[in-house]
Amino acid sequence: MKVSAAILKKKTIDIFKKYKLTSKQAKISADIIIKAELVGASSHGLSRLKMYINRIKRKLINNSPKIKIKKISKSISLIDADNAIGFVGGDIGIKQAIKNAKSTGIGIVAVKNSGHYGLSSFYAEQAVKKNMLVFCFTNAPPALAPHGSKKSLFGTNPICFGTPTGTKVPFILDTSVSLVNRGKIRLAAKLGKKIPKGSALNKYGKPTTSAIEALEGVQLPIAGFRGSGLAWMVDILSGVLTGGNHGGKVRDPFDDFTGPQNVGHLFIVFKSNLFLNNYTSRIKQNIRNVKKLPKVNGIKEILYPGQSKFRIYKKNMKKKINIPKKILRDLNDL
Amino acid sequence: MKVSAAILKKKTIDIFKKYKLTSKQAKISADIIIKAELVGASSHGLSRLKMYINRIKRKLINNSPKIKIKKISKSISLIDADNAIGFVGGDIGIKQAIKNAKSTGIGIVAVKNSGHYGLSSFYAEQAVKKNMLVFCFTNAPPALAPHGSKKSLFGTNPICFGTPTGTKVPFILDTSVSLVNRGKIRLAAKLGKKIPKGSALNKYGKPTTSAIEALEGVQLPIAGFRGSGLAWMVDILSGVLTGGNHGGKVRDPFDDFTGPQNVGHLFIVFKSNLFLNNYTSRIKQNIRNVKKLPKVNGIKEILYPGQSKFRIYKKNMKKKINIPKKILRDLNDL
Repeated sequence: MKVSAAILKKKTIDIFKKYKLTSKQAKISADIIIKAELVGASSHGLSRLKMYINRIKRKLINNSPKIKIKKISKSISLIDADNAIGFVGGDIGIKQAIKNAKSTGIGIVAVKNSGHYGLSSFYAEQAVKKNMLVFCFTNAPPALAPHGSKKSLFGTNPICFGTPTGTKVPFILDTSVSLVNRGKIRLAAKLGKKIPKGSALNKYGKPTTSAIEALEGVQLPIAGFRGSGLAWMVDILSGVLTGGNHGGKVRDPFDDFTGPQNVGHLFIVFKSNLFLNNYTSRIKQNIRNVKKLPKVNGIKEILYPGQSKFRIYKKNMKKKINIPKKILRDLNDL
Repeated sequence: MKVSAAILKKKTIDIFKKYKLTSKQAKISADIIIKAELVGASSHGLSRLKMYINRIKRKLINNSPKIKIKKISKSISLIDADNAIGFVGGDIGIKQAIKNAKSTGIGIVAVKNSGHYGLSSFYAEQAVKKNMLVFCFTNAPPALAPHGSKKSLFGTNPICFGTPTGTKVPFILDTSVSLVNRGKIRLAAKLGKKIPKGSALNKYGKPTTSAIEALEGVQLPIAGFRGSGLAWMVDILSGVLTGGNHGGKVRDPFDDFTGPQNVGHLFIVFKSNLFLNNYTSRIKQNIRNVKKLPKVNGIKEILYPGQSKFRIYKKNMKKKINIPKKILRDLNDL
């Protein structure tokens, strides 16, 4: 069914408020959830709302957190999110990192005792809009097997990097280190389609291109040891360094109710004119150089990371969003 | 032929000094070149020596650079390497970043007007030995086609991340964003072997698994738009931000003698106990969790990034290194 973003957001805010999130918390959370729908990332949108509410009901997400911000220096802060909903932990984290970078040129902020915070790109965007470059790292429950293992331990652990471009459309790379996401494998299994070589192992730890076997086995990171190393790096930066859970200990928000997730986030933000005063013209030149390259057949334009999502967002803002009936039913139930 | 590392290093230092590098510059450069041989990365070792000398002879590498270090804040420095040999630009850069991090917790240092600096891992190692976490970024001449293009523009642009592990063996991820390196494709072409799907395009911009066609065409980044985005990120961080060349303008050191390379580097270094005082026990736990996972058949131990190179290094330190005759002849000629 088609529903306008404004109505969906209002509904989502009301639901969160019903479960005793403050107006501010509810607004931050709903904003990011609906933005995910608007950029076409519905896997990070309303389909997760029921999960968040389930965890609030069980007090695994704290609806009245006492968030502590520890100032370590003008550049460095540690935030204990007290098991607030992840969106709130993430939002306070990036805002603090931006504040620190404004003051000293560079800000580095760790957040612990947080939760799943949706798409990293929305936090990166906040820094880019202030003309800053940004890294966002966050870990996630086990989904990928480390290289050489047949059991999952790393999360899909995205690497997110953003930079201003001198235009309204930010460059935001927000890439998981898995080749194919689980939703796509489920779909391939339904349709009887193969999945790419090297993307999964069967339950015996052997490489497979069968989607059904992959669902019983484990997913692999991109490019063997390279992707495995990148997933490991993200777990260290967002978990080991910050005080968050790590090493396979982040709980699955959907089905592990034995305690809060304690996801960690790390934000590194710095001014684009840290070293030079003509960053804007340089990045524009850089993007021009790439865009003017000869294209492979069927490609009209070389897009930079974030550009495609921005276009989908703009398009969806003008019309209603298509939401599956099941999700709308959940929304009404809540 | 088998030669000891000490003899090779002495010879390399003498050659650099003959071409008027100072003792210190010659020592730094030889040290990194021979280390590359010792870890088994001979593509970054003595096979490049003739190239460096060629560029010194043509004054494209400056053998008496006036390197300027501009202190922007206690955390932030910009280094103009004045077209010094890349090893020297890189070495001064990482040392300054470590110094800044010692003083404030975090150091960020950009280097411009530098050159190819060998393996990033040797710079990362310096920071890790001081119990710090580190990112090293550097760009390189065109080798990979951006996603959607049939022409190379990005370099193999490594992503390098290091962390102490509480042991003598550092965790150092130093991964290029190409699936297969050019040397391996050349070898596959000679042996008539296929290369992996998705690693190259032929000269018409069509995907190919023929090594011969790949050599006439272009190499692709790992994992399509993901790897392409990562290569682009590294070009922005090390080139656009620093004042180095970027957007396909870094010159190939082997065959482009129209000017200096102007490679850029970016080093971000921070203390491991920035947020917590038990980083060492946490990282040890993290690595233990991964290592104890069940393994796929044929794998005895899950290694973390850098562990394999460290073992090769230790082994090679005890014996002489195998150097191809052609390389030794070059050495004697120089």
